[in-house]
Amino acid sequence: MEKTMDKIIALAKARGFVYAGSEIYGGLANTWDYGNLGVELKNNVKKAWWQKFVQENPYNVGVDCAILMNPQTWIASGHLGSFSDPLMDCKECHERFRADKIIEDFAAEKGIELKSSVDGWSKEEMKEFIDSNNVSCPTCGKHNFTDIREFNLMFKTFQGVTEDAKNTVYLRPETAQGIFVNFKNVQRTSRKKVPFGIGQIGKSFRNEITPGNFTFRTREFEQMELEFFCKPGTQDEWFQYWRSFCRDWLTSLGMKEDEMRLRDHDPEELSFYSTGTTDIEYLFPFGWGELWGIASRTDYDLTQHQNVSGQDLTYFDDETNEKYLPYVIEPSLGADRVVLAFLCAAYDEEEVGKDGKSDVRTVLHFHPALAPVKIGVLPLSKKLNEGAEKVFAELSKKYNCEFDDRGTIGKRYRRMDEIGTPFCITYDFDSEEDHMVTIRHRDSMEQERIAIADLDAYFADKFTF
Amino acid sequence: MEKTMDKIIALAKARGFVYAGSEIYGGLANTWDYGNLGVELKNNVKKAWWQKFVQENPYNVGVDCAILMNPQTWIASGHLGSFSDPLMDCKECHERFRADKIIEDFAAEKGIELKSSVDGWSKEEMKEFIDSNNVSCPTCGKHNFTDIREFNLMFKTFQGVTEDAKNTVYLRPETAQGIFVNFKNVQRTSRKKVPFGIGQIGKSFRNEITPGNFTFRTREFEQMELEFFCKPGTQDEWFQYWRSFCRDWLTSLGMKEDEMRLRDHDPEELSFYSTGTTDIEYLFPFGWGELWGIASRTDYDLTQHQNVSGQDLTYFDDETNEKYLPYVIEPSLGADRVVLAFLCAAYDEEEVGKDGKSDVRTVLHFHPALAPVKIGVLPLSKKLNEGAEKVFAELSKKYNCEFDDRGTIGKRYRRMDEIGTPFCITYDFDSEEDHMVTIRHRDSMEQERIAIADLDAYFADKFTF
Repeated sequence: MEKTMDKIIALAKARGFVYAGSEIYGGLANTWDYGNLGVELKNNVKKAWWQKFVQENPYNVGVDCAILMNPQTWIASGHLGSFSDPLMDCKECHERFRADKIIEDFAAEKGIELKSSVDGWSKEEMKEFIDSNNVSCPTCGKHNFTDIREFNLMFKTFQGVTEDAKNTVYLRPETAQGIFVNFKNVQRTSRKKVPFGIGQIGKSFRNEITPGNFTFRTREFEQMELEFFCKPGTQDEWFQYWRSFCRDWLTSLGMKEDEMRLRDHDPEELSFYSTGTTDIEYLFPFGWGELWGIASRTDYDLTQHQNVSGQDLTYFDDETNEKYLPYVIEPSLGADRVVLAFLCAAYDEEEVGKDGKSDVRTVLHFHPALAPVKIGVLPLSKKLNEGAEKVFAELSKKYNCEFDDRGTIGKRYRRMDEIGTPFCITYDFDSEEDHMVTIRHRDSMEQERIAIADLDAYFADKFTF
Repeated sequence: MEKTMDKIIALAKARGFVYAGSEIYGGLANTWDYGNLGVELKNNVKKAWWQKFVQENPYNVGVDCAILMNPQTWIASGHLGSFSDPLMDCKECHERFRADKIIEDFAAEKGIELKSSVDGWSKEEMKEFIDSNNVSCPTCGKHNFTDIREFNLMFKTFQGVTEDAKNTVYLRPETAQGIFVNFKNVQRTSRKKVPFGIGQIGKSFRNEITPGNFTFRTREFEQMELEFFCKPGTQDEWFQYWRSFCRDWLTSLGMKEDEMRLRDHDPEELSFYSTGTTDIEYLFPFGWGELWGIASRTDYDLTQHQNVSGQDLTYFDDETNEKYLPYVIEPSLGADRVVLAFLCAAYDEEEVGKDGKSDVRTVLHFHPALAPVKIGVLPLSKKLNEGAEKVFAELSKKYNCEFDDRGTIGKRYRRMDEIGTPFCITYDFDSEEDHMVTIRHRDSMEQERIAIADLDAYFADKFTF
């Protein structure tokens, strides 16, 4: 079975995981809307993250900060100064390109080994490479580019009635800064002592020049970020702790070891303040892609905010009587990316023999905790709807269930397989008499008979992880 | 006990419900961040809405659409044309005002009965009233205003590398339109038949001239909207159905009948396409404020999108062989507003007598389903932390719990009362021997002794609603 993005995107659109954004108007660039199943899948992923990173974790608490922040925030974080893409235009055909991408593509095509990652090059170095290698325009093939200019990736807007500099605000490019500016507030109100962490889930916006790969890189995206504050000197052990914790979270939700890898950044890839960064990558059908960046950021962020705001952001350690700016470990996860990874990981086409004939079923092997529909309730005949609806109503109080009384039972099972429903309950004519139902399992396709009265206990531990 | 906004805001800031946004930079207009308790409270409110409006409801499914939409959407919805505030400047002191607000304030002050709601007046009618009544500037007292201009309330930004009209996009001013443009997609992928509804929770943005009253009116806010599609002719019964459903949702979560009211709009208040609108209002300390607008909108929205997009949005009813545009009932709830209402409703100061001395406790009587911390786990002495931590770890798998080993047990109970924790578990020296703990109830302050092994069963039905 070849697992391709085309197949996964087709299933996503057909079954209500993801639609093109503003589709009736021809879409809007690379925006996407989560449909009736996609919203449940994404909510389950967010819930699973919150449960393990905030609710159960004894160190951490959460926050939910505004998307619009005082612009001083972006001066301190560096986003106003240097959060930009290097752009240049072709003077012949007037197409606009990212200089770094053109260099990477050129090097890959020609088999040239670059001395270092283009991310770290200056504009002048890029220009020099393009000129000395006579790199040509990907659109018209000529070599006649403008100089390279830096294009800031923050979306800007205006708050208030006049569109001037004084009213300019930005859509946050990351949720992290809302946490840093509230470090003292949260420490005070939660009465947490270092080490402790603050988690946040929310939308961020980056005006990417080249979004793409379905929901992998979009201009509007959701993040699940944790900033973990620890005592200077302990950062390496906590970096290892969170590096393992993040990997374990993915595997506990069914991600396979051979489809993910941990890529430690080389020293020259690191930001100047970082003492270590690991990317957790997933093997998408289009290649390896970053899900999680786990970075040891020292006290860089708090120092910057302390300097720009003039506020004292130090922490007083009442056990050692020391005052210091805590060091930070930042595991930063893209919600849309990890949802896409779970969708790709779940996708399968299986040969299922029946009566000597071979057949193929499409199935999403979601971990039950992530499955958008937990239980399908299927009356064998519409005459049995009343009894089946009672089962549905009772289970719906705890789980997202779907009622389906249309088509043969075989077709209904296949449909439930295709949306990843781990359990189907078939309510048949015997059920009216013996008050039992058949539970059919998605992965094994095995069936078992259970009393309706026992369903609550039966499902109690089926969706934990 | 006088319940004032000042007291509630002070508690919210002190305990981590809500902080001023970007506080270390002096804030940003009326933005607010939810703190470690606020995020849990808000998540619980959103979860409670999703549970009753989407998960349990047999008619409805959910979606999660992008904030940035194709601008054609706002032409169809009317937001680009007429979603605006009437503004004018004082030529003397150069302050800017909303003309409608100046008129309302003037009328209230002078005891003038206005012929109709100012919302419905034209710019010329407002100007005429201001001039003929010689209304003066609230700031400088003079009467010398500019003409009234319409100011669009949508935040605009630019997607892509150039800031021109072609790249202008808007932050959605409501989540509803994402639902309308996806009506056919969701109907197809969910295979729902009319009547059915589509719910969505998400951020919206309105560049209000006068935000205020804490989190009641903010420029960035979160909505919980349902668009319910029904057959033309059935809209009145479904309007009544959702009107009751929404009221019942509030009361089932503990909102008191005498602190809320249903205000049916007069015919002249209604939009021209609406056949009925009811606001559910809550009595905040600052007065009655709208939480929920429940509107019967006919086929206005789908007609508009059908006309502008040129796509066929009709529904084919295979039972009657009819093709039609469904009518829409829209219950639209402000998440931040209803969170604030639950916070205000929960606030209380109680006289509690002890040893003949009178004392006052501040307590938040949240419904257990909404309480940010469900269970406080309190070891009577730090020597008992190990055993208490085990209880905490076990309960944390299911509930958001807080562990507190600091201060006298009485002070810890008071602190838990102040953040609305419905249950406290005290782990004492006997617990080491008899494996039992004391459960203390927030509202009654009564205590009971329970075996640790029975806690799971004890709490199983305590947080439902």
